[in-house]
Amino acid sequence: MKITDTMNINSEGRLQIGGCDAVTLAHKFGTPLYVLDEERVRAVCRDFYAVLKDKYPDSLVCYASKALSCKAVYKIVASEGLGADVVSEGELLTALGAGFNADTIYFHGNNKSDSELKLAVGSGVHAVVVDSLYEAGRLDAVCAAAGKRMRVLVRVNPGIDAHTHRFIQTTRVDSKFGFAIADGSALAAIGAILKTDNLDFTGLHCHIGSQIFELKPFKLAVDKMTDFIKTVATELNAGVSELNLGGGYGITYTDEDKPLKPSEYVDAIVEKLIDCIAEKALTPPRLIFEPGRSVVGEAGTTLYTVGAVKDIKKVKKYISVDGGMFENPRYALYEAKYEAMLANRALEKPVETVTVAGKCCESGDMLVKDAFLPKAEPGDILAVFSTGAYNYSMAGNYNRNRIPPMVLVKDGKADYIIRPQTYDELLSRDVCPERLEGDTD
Amino acid sequence: MKITDTMNINSEGRLQIGGCDAVTLAHKFGTPLYVLDEERVRAVCRDFYAVLKDKYPDSLVCYASKALSCKAVYKIVASEGLGADVVSEGELLTALGAGFNADTIYFHGNNKSDSELKLAVGSGVHAVVVDSLYEAGRLDAVCAAAGKRMRVLVRVNPGIDAHTHRFIQTTRVDSKFGFAIADGSALAAIGAILKTDNLDFTGLHCHIGSQIFELKPFKLAVDKMTDFIKTVATELNAGVSELNLGGGYGITYTDEDKPLKPSEYVDAIVEKLIDCIAEKALTPPRLIFEPGRSVVGEAGTTLYTVGAVKDIKKVKKYISVDGGMFENPRYALYEAKYEAMLANRALEKPVETVTVAGKCCESGDMLVKDAFLPKAEPGDILAVFSTGAYNYSMAGNYNRNRIPPMVLVKDGKADYIIRPQTYDELLSRDVCPERLEGDTD
Repeated sequence: MKITDTMNINSEGRLQIGGCDAVTLAHKFGTPLYVLDEERVRAVCRDFYAVLKDKYPDSLVCYASKALSCKAVYKIVASEGLGADVVSEGELLTALGAGFNADTIYFHGNNKSDSELKLAVGSGVHAVVVDSLYEAGRLDAVCAAAGKRMRVLVRVNPGIDAHTHRFIQTTRVDSKFGFAIADGSALAAIGAILKTDNLDFTGLHCHIGSQIFELKPFKLAVDKMTDFIKTVATELNAGVSELNLGGGYGITYTDEDKPLKPSEYVDAIVEKLIDCIAEKALTPPRLIFEPGRSVVGEAGTTLYTVGAVKDIKKVKKYISVDGGMFENPRYALYEAKYEAMLANRALEKPVETVTVAGKCCESGDMLVKDAFLPKAEPGDILAVFSTGAYNYSMAGNYNRNRIPPMVLVKDGKADYIIRPQTYDELLSRDVCPERLEGDTD
Repeated sequence: MKITDTMNINSEGRLQIGGCDAVTLAHKFGTPLYVLDEERVRAVCRDFYAVLKDKYPDSLVCYASKALSCKAVYKIVASEGLGADVVSEGELLTALGAGFNADTIYFHGNNKSDSELKLAVGSGVHAVVVDSLYEAGRLDAVCAAAGKRMRVLVRVNPGIDAHTHRFIQTTRVDSKFGFAIADGSALAAIGAILKTDNLDFTGLHCHIGSQIFELKPFKLAVDKMTDFIKTVATELNAGVSELNLGGGYGITYTDEDKPLKPSEYVDAIVEKLIDCIAEKALTPPRLIFEPGRSVVGEAGTTLYTVGAVKDIKKVKKYISVDGGMFENPRYALYEAKYEAMLANRALEKPVETVTVAGKCCESGDMLVKDAFLPKAEPGDILAVFSTGAYNYSMAGNYNRNRIPPMVLVKDGKADYIIRPQTYDELLSRDVCPERLEGDTD
């Protein structure tokens, strides 16, 4: 069972997160409820820096905020010394609204709008990670109009694809993101950017995948990227002063997942980079890591109230809860696996495997396909673990359900960091042209 | 190319929907933009009644509003004589907010909350479609507390599974919804409901799947359901005065889809029902159809602006647009297929197959995997067809993108029915506990 350092089972046999009794949280704030464990977020941030600050001081850890973008989380990671990457105007406005230092922000995305580029330039983000020549041209024009310059990282595809626990090396990169090294388009893009009037070519970015448990693909990426730094120097006489290696560090969703600690990923990557720098006689670039899921994923727990229990003899037992794909679409999207427990009966022995279903009117609306639980009854509080990343951020109002609130827990205190959505808000954008009025009278 | 009666290519070679030039719409309202064609919605509503009103007058067509729930659509379908089914408090509040007649509303869902049951009873919906005995007990209690009675339909599984273009007959029903006929649980549920103090057993509901193109599974459902009506009469001496056969009528997403017209589905189902009633000597029940996707699906078109175009030689050409899985998650969820055209160059011959990618920071964020288009350039307006159902209703703020607005078009007029979301609204629920303040100062 997935009990981390900042969780425990209290004397009443209930799950406790950040010193808060989960059942009390559920009753006080209602369910479904996203719970984020502040100390757990901070611990991960610190572990990313644990070896980095000594072994490679010219470095930055940027929180990939698409995993969970809200003001409070930007404040927490900033206070731990992290920068951030943002992928949209909305994320950048949120970060800025939280008082985030723009000079530690990188702006990503395969199709940034003009208004996004203008905001990036106007707010003075550290760099824009350019994804296409079309974008480079527009960014140059935006800079010209604003009378400003902008640092640019070029997103390159090193030909390593490490999604979903496996990785392949390929020179035929099929991705909507970035420029391939192998076919010469990355080098050509840098050449073009060097010729612009207002863009400062600053470095390279790559991102090889997500939920990666192995070190090998990361080391291979360092090897390929440093080779390419050498190529850029030789062919274009240009220096790469920043190397952003993206993210992709795996987390534990279920017992099947065996990730390393953040510091272990960082340690191995830094060692490989130091070796490559020496071997290839490079000027050491500033090194940037971009963890997202690993910063907030395991810190999140979602609490639900059990409703209808349906035992279809010889087929399956369903327990339905008051959430669903509107607040966690990851099973519907990826058949993602989660672990769960009954928070109010946390010491009871699991006795049966059930499917946890959501309340959306859709057969595929499941949250946990195989949850091993004590015999659940209506009213039980179900805790689903590792929901900090890509749950709230992917939530919507399917079936006109409200997006749940989120509380931040620490030392027995719980505070909203995302307050409840009201039905007034949910309906507020519906408008009726006058010509429809009277139709139902 | 998917041009329906209410669409055409105008003299400037541009797509026109409901008499509105799509390029003008895109420039006036911005992109991405959901466009809903009012006449097309009305035409489908009328076709559902085309044969029904003569052949089976004691009937109702209920719009399954989970496909697209907003006030204007409830007003339109109500003015065409339709009732509605809702699956949540939010949908019911929206319908009521649009002035919808509660007595034509059915309330569905596998795990209704107490507040949903209270609202259903309090607002006087026509019936609650009960999905579990746990719910029946709570609904009975809610009625007792309110001093009211409630009509109840029982959701049953007739053992026909007709999702995704195929159907199977099974007695081992694996679904979070309803009660199986085969194992006796449906009959037991009705028996239990008949014994409650405040619930009036009124009828049966089934829903066999979605995107169904064949008549056979629907006819089979009628056969099984009328058999079961007979069983209910024999075993429990109870009458079934309403038979709700759900929805599932297929629509055209691409040329591969060959749906019948609504009136053809209705005609065949009604004929089968009339035969079964005669053959089994039943009192004719009120007949209810619940189309959702078919009412609004083909009436919806989404307009995008083309941004970055990425031609990866010998691999694939990507064109990125300003929308993505945040406003249409159906490719990400189901690998759904769509057709698209360049609305500003609608007469130009398609010359290449490209992948239309969204702007979300996720490799799987695609909208149309294989779109056959003229050579697209940045600034072109891309129209994706048949997006009226399960696009806006499933939208969210992934990557903190704003949910696009929707305009209703008719006779050359275009009016918002869902107004644009602002960043202020998007960020308005973010709150920061005091203890985090100052951390980034």
